[in-house]
Amino acid sequence: MKKLYFTPGPSQLYFTVEEHLKNALKEGVPSISHRSKDFQAIYSNTAEQLKELLNIPEGYHIVFTSSATEVWERIGQNLIERESFHFVNGAFSEKFQNVIENLGKSALKKQADEGSVVDVETVLIPESSELISITYNETSTGASHTQNDLSLIRESFEDQLIALDVVSITPSVEIDFSVVDTFYFSVQKCFGLPAGLGVWVFNEKCIQKAESLLNKGISIGSYHCIPELVKKSVVNQTPDTPNMLNIYLLGKVAEDMNKKGVQQIRQETNYKHALLQHTINESKYLSHFVEKEINRSKTTAVAITTIDSKLLIDALNKKGLVIGSGYGNFKASQIRIANFPTHSKEQIEMLSDQILSLNI
Amino acid sequence: MKKLYFTPGPSQLYFTVEEHLKNALKEGVPSISHRSKDFQAIYSNTAEQLKELLNIPEGYHIVFTSSATEVWERIGQNLIERESFHFVNGAFSEKFQNVIENLGKSALKKQADEGSVVDVETVLIPESSELISITYNETSTGASHTQNDLSLIRESFEDQLIALDVVSITPSVEIDFSVVDTFYFSVQKCFGLPAGLGVWVFNEKCIQKAESLLNKGISIGSYHCIPELVKKSVVNQTPDTPNMLNIYLLGKVAEDMNKKGVQQIRQETNYKHALLQHTINESKYLSHFVEKEINRSKTTAVAITTIDSKLLIDALNKKGLVIGSGYGNFKASQIRIANFPTHSKEQIEMLSDQILSLNI
Repeated sequence: MKKLYFTPGPSQLYFTVEEHLKNALKEGVPSISHRSKDFQAIYSNTAEQLKELLNIPEGYHIVFTSSATEVWERIGQNLIERESFHFVNGAFSEKFQNVIENLGKSALKKQADEGSVVDVETVLIPESSELISITYNETSTGASHTQNDLSLIRESFEDQLIALDVVSITPSVEIDFSVVDTFYFSVQKCFGLPAGLGVWVFNEKCIQKAESLLNKGISIGSYHCIPELVKKSVVNQTPDTPNMLNIYLLGKVAEDMNKKGVQQIRQETNYKHALLQHTINESKYLSHFVEKEINRSKTTAVAITTIDSKLLIDALNKKGLVIGSGYGNFKASQIRIANFPTHSKEQIEMLSDQILSLNI
Repeated sequence: MKKLYFTPGPSQLYFTVEEHLKNALKEGVPSISHRSKDFQAIYSNTAEQLKELLNIPEGYHIVFTSSATEVWERIGQNLIERESFHFVNGAFSEKFQNVIENLGKSALKKQADEGSVVDVETVLIPESSELISITYNETSTGASHTQNDLSLIRESFEDQLIALDVVSITPSVEIDFSVVDTFYFSVQKCFGLPAGLGVWVFNEKCIQKAESLLNKGISIGSYHCIPELVKKSVVNQTPDTPNMLNIYLLGKVAEDMNKKGVQQIRQETNYKHALLQHTINESKYLSHFVEKEINRSKTTAVAITTIDSKLLIDALNKKGLVIGSGYGNFKASQIRIANFPTHSKEQIEMLSDQILSLNI
């Protein structure tokens, strides 16, 4: 029996990936030179499709890394001289903070209670913090910020750099990226691709910051520092030999999403989200982890389980439906269910029916 | 017409990759969690197959990065406090040296004349250099060191760390890795895989060095520093979400190579190398770039062209045979031909026939 993955990443492949993979092999995509015109056309297509899909404002550069985790380190090297400030809503926003500390820089944080987000209106951020980090959708807890939160931070901090983690949320939810200076994601979440590629987008202010650090004699890394990435990206190349196959697949999937229409994807996301909320409300085994409805993730439903989560996970696994356990300390007491663009309404309906008919 | 790639990486996929890719999709490899037992089994298999294939000595750790380029930076962060020494035979060994300088450390070098390697017996390496870097096979020039060179350096420098670049050479040529402390390669060369994965192997001395830097309060990076990589590798995991698909494919291809027998692969490499040498000798358009026969790469034949290399490349391209141009400044005046395990004797014979019958 072929399984259906509702795990919050890696997850089910986007339903067109297999076909694109076949074409990639036919066209010899993995064998071409990363310095060839053919690869430049692939890079260009992927960047253009992403610009359209995510409505990326003019003047932002799109570059590729190997993961969102790598972007954390690159931000630390290129955009922070002494101090950053982190909104911490769970394990992943905290990991970013740790990365900055590992680089020998000061990383302040405001930590939310488990299952909630930091109230941006009450938080005090020192003027000395050069970069403010927000994780839109905390994949570990299912707690999500809002566009309003981003706008409020931008209004209060015009000069600071704002870095936005949109792993496991974009393109399923509309975000106005013009209020942040840099954002990033990995492709094994909402884009339904094999893991091994990160997308990093930043504006001119970020380039200037990296150059100012360089001019001060501060190391900003090597092959993947911002000046090197930009120098190559303007000719649709990368400094190293990249994961070309994934860059190709990302372009094709973004193209498919553009053809379908991002509004359609977002409407379906809302419908499936409502269905999952209903499922958590109705199931005798489940209750919401994130109390405030406005902060419940549209793409990552997280529920507390009345019994060991393994019993629920195994019962669904026997039916070919794979859901995620809770993250870290919540492994046995929570489940996580992804609502990504590849998950059809029918599949989420089926999952919901199966959960509601469980009798363990 | 499907093309055959003799480019020195990315190159022709190993002939079993397409089949393994189909199986990976069937088994849901890109969708499983990188924290699952299924992925741990994949990691373990890949490490074990590599240990057998490359005869990796006991006590060496195998970890995964996104490229060999990334390994350069990780070596710079983890294994060098102040100073390294680099044997530079071409563009790639020089790029490594640049990476170390970009990290704000001192990188000494001895540069060979173009198309040759540094004579290890005459070079003076200061005792202050903590790490000595050698690139076995310089993909840009086709100049290759020998096992004897490695042994000579080891004998003279027992305490220093020796780092060996085996990109585009392993497993096609036998190397006794016990004389170096760390070595690394990317998978789009001899392993015939899509780009986007690096393999980094190091011994206990490297772990101790990284820990000693950390204890001195020196930043050794974050998620991909040696202690983090080791901590995860002992449970067959990675710190970040890795290129799982490529780790799976690498294990399968290494398994295929073990079944075929590495000796068989090396014998075929020698035969095809001799054939390419003969082709360069006989062609009216070609002459050897690397003068000393012992330093001519077994896997990357590089020839000077009497006419613009583009004319030769285009003529072969029309027959579906893709070879590489010269690297950098040699783009128009040289060609490069890969002799990797996926290239069969028959394919190299066909390429040779076509080159020798060219009339431009």
